Amino acid sequence: MRVGDQQRRTIWPAEDDRAVHIIDQTRLPHRFETLRLTTVADAAHAIRSMQVRGAPLIGATAAYGLALAAASDPREETLAAAAALLLATRPTAINLRWALDDMLAVLKQLPTDHRVETAWRRAAEIADADVAMNSSIGEHGLALIRAVQRGKPVGETVNILTHCNAGWLATVDWGTALAPVYKAHHAGIPVHVFADETRPRNQGASLTAWELGQEQVPHTVIVDNAGGHLMQRGRVDLCIVGTDRTTRTGDVANKIGTYLKALCARDCGVPFFVAAPSPSIDWSLADGIKEIPIEERGDAEVTSITGLTAEGQQETVRLTPSGSAAANPAFDVTPARLVTGLITERGISAASARGLARLFPERA
Amino acid sequence: MRVGDQQRRTIWPAEDDRAVHIIDQTRLPHRFETLRLTTVADAAHAIRSMQVRGAPLIGATAAYGLALAAASDPREETLAAAAALLLATRPTAINLRWALDDMLAVLKQLPTDHRVETAWRRAAEIADADVAMNSSIGEHGLALIRAVQRGKPVGETVNILTHCNAGWLATVDWGTALAPVYKAHHAGIPVHVFADETRPRNQGASLTAWELGQEQVPHTVIVDNAGGHLMQRGRVDLCIVGTDRTTRTGDVANKIGTYLKALCARDCGVPFFVAAPSPSIDWSLADGIKEIPIEERGDAEVTSITGLTAEGQQETVRLTPSGSAAANPAFDVTPARLVTGLITERGISAASARGLARLFPERA
Repeated sequence: MRVGDQQRRTIWPAEDDRAVHIIDQTRLPHRFETLRLTTVADAAHAIRSMQVRGAPLIGATAAYGLALAAASDPREETLAAAAALLLATRPTAINLRWALDDMLAVLKQLPTDHRVETAWRRAAEIADADVAMNSSIGEHGLALIRAVQRGKPVGETVNILTHCNAGWLATVDWGTALAPVYKAHHAGIPVHVFADETRPRNQGASLTAWELGQEQVPHTVIVDNAGGHLMQRGRVDLCIVGTDRTTRTGDVANKIGTYLKALCARDCGVPFFVAAPSPSIDWSLADGIKEIPIEERGDAEVTSITGLTAEGQQETVRLTPSGSAAANPAFDVTPARLVTGLITERGISAASARGLARLFPERA
Repeated sequence: MRVGDQQRRTIWPAEDDRAVHIIDQTRLPHRFETLRLTTVADAAHAIRSMQVRGAPLIGATAAYGLALAAASDPREETLAAAAALLLATRPTAINLRWALDDMLAVLKQLPTDHRVETAWRRAAEIADADVAMNSSIGEHGLALIRAVQRGKPVGETVNILTHCNAGWLATVDWGTALAPVYKAHHAGIPVHVFADETRPRNQGASLTAWELGQEQVPHTVIVDNAGGHLMQRGRVDLCIVGTDRTTRTGDVANKIGTYLKALCARDCGVPFFVAAPSPSIDWSLADGIKEIPIEERGDAEVTSITGLTAEGQQETVRLTPSGSAAANPAFDVTPARLVTGLITERGISAASARGLARLFPERA
């Protein structure tokens, strides 16, 4: 998608296949900087420190991380150690495990001296597949937005609320929840996005607002508390969010606070859709609340925040009294009963075992 | 309540009855500073700039503001102009109008030369009445907390979630939602408070955490997104929040985001109580969503935030990309159907016209 007047992806291999480039998302929205990753440790650090984040992009970065590992030493034990290092970076997003399993399965079959080239090619395929899946999600979601538009007076804007960042910055390109928004905007449908700021890390205020701004999609940043009021007053037509892990029954682990938005969407009669590419589906799980591990992050993300001073310096300020404890669960689980539908690359499914099995019969 | 080892109120008259002192709440939690208000314009500024905030404290400050006006000129037209100035400061909290109506009704009956002394006395009575009402709310809420404690294994902590600040800083003393917590803590019941940070102004992270810390009540600051997850996992026994305006039917206008917490309390089977002193009840309204005006505040509260740098300086930092719009509704309305009960100074009532009429038959 667009950054200024350039088309970008969030991750791309160096021309010499010796490194991978990423956008350093910890610097956005105030600075656009790219980083060059040359080792699997660099890739693990990028995921852990959230220079890259978003379930699909974490998966793609892990795939490239294994390619970097293979380039330095393609033996099976090295690859296994590299996969273990990458897997340990973040516990909730299932795409990470999916990408690593895929890479290892492909590489193990090959003689050692064929692994490097194949690793780069397979990582690129995973990245391209992500772009293609998201584009398909965009088309299916576009149909939803068109349907909403048809229910409104001619020329009226379709208002979409989203939580966190499930835009192109969370993926290789297009995004999951925002792909339908971009497709609608490109198709000339008047869309406007309410972007939850998404404390504690403010991915909505920083990343979603930034990427919508770059694509010139009208948007308004709101605090996480405000969505209920807006829905209650009829100012939101549709919610679309992403997912870090979806059970085969349609429960959705996504950024903390998603569950609250799903509850008020239900209470206000606003459709609540989850953009769920199939690598985000954990076919082994049936009960999201009991079975999905929820990452607990450090309290500093709650007690302080980083922004830009009037002088243009990045500065971190403390928000709480010293001595006050803080807790920081990073995800919550929205039960399938609150999800109107899952937008997958194969179409829209009910958030249920039956709905998903119909679209993915080979997995059911 | 305690600040260090001193007992304090949030507002108190100067000994010479020529001024009113307040705690400057815009400086908390990082600095404790008091201000001396000497004119009605000072009082209006203190309310508008949120040096004082919280529906009950706004009411008490408005009462003292009228006393300051009377001290400078006790004629009826001056008092009416002063009341209009004060009334225009904040639209949602009903206590403001209640206190002004009360003061004007008392003063109008008197000859001009008796008004000043009576104005000071009546303002002090309003402040004292607030303290007494909150103490009663505390006792009724304490009974609730005891009942929750009896349902838990012996010695286990009672976990209470609150939103925004409805503590003593929002009142003259004791607080509304936190009065039961302080009474329980003083009674030796092990209580722990989850304090929603309450974006955009972070009254939870700054004021609630600070005042609980001063009273040494165990507490944990969480982002506004986290409450649903904690309730879903059984980590919250009880929610208690305040109210800026309650309809006679039990709808509750309170800080933006309250509605979301009420929804998840309902979804998770957690009791959701609103501490509602009778001056917060607007007996003229039956439908909170249609009839309560919701204050829209400036976007800078969303796009930037103020905190303390590592060097101990207060600094404001920008959180959003330049060019991104923001919206900032300051309150939302929680429908009565989501409220387990209203804790008033006369006891606990169902959130319904019938329940309130039973406790306040003279108003029904």
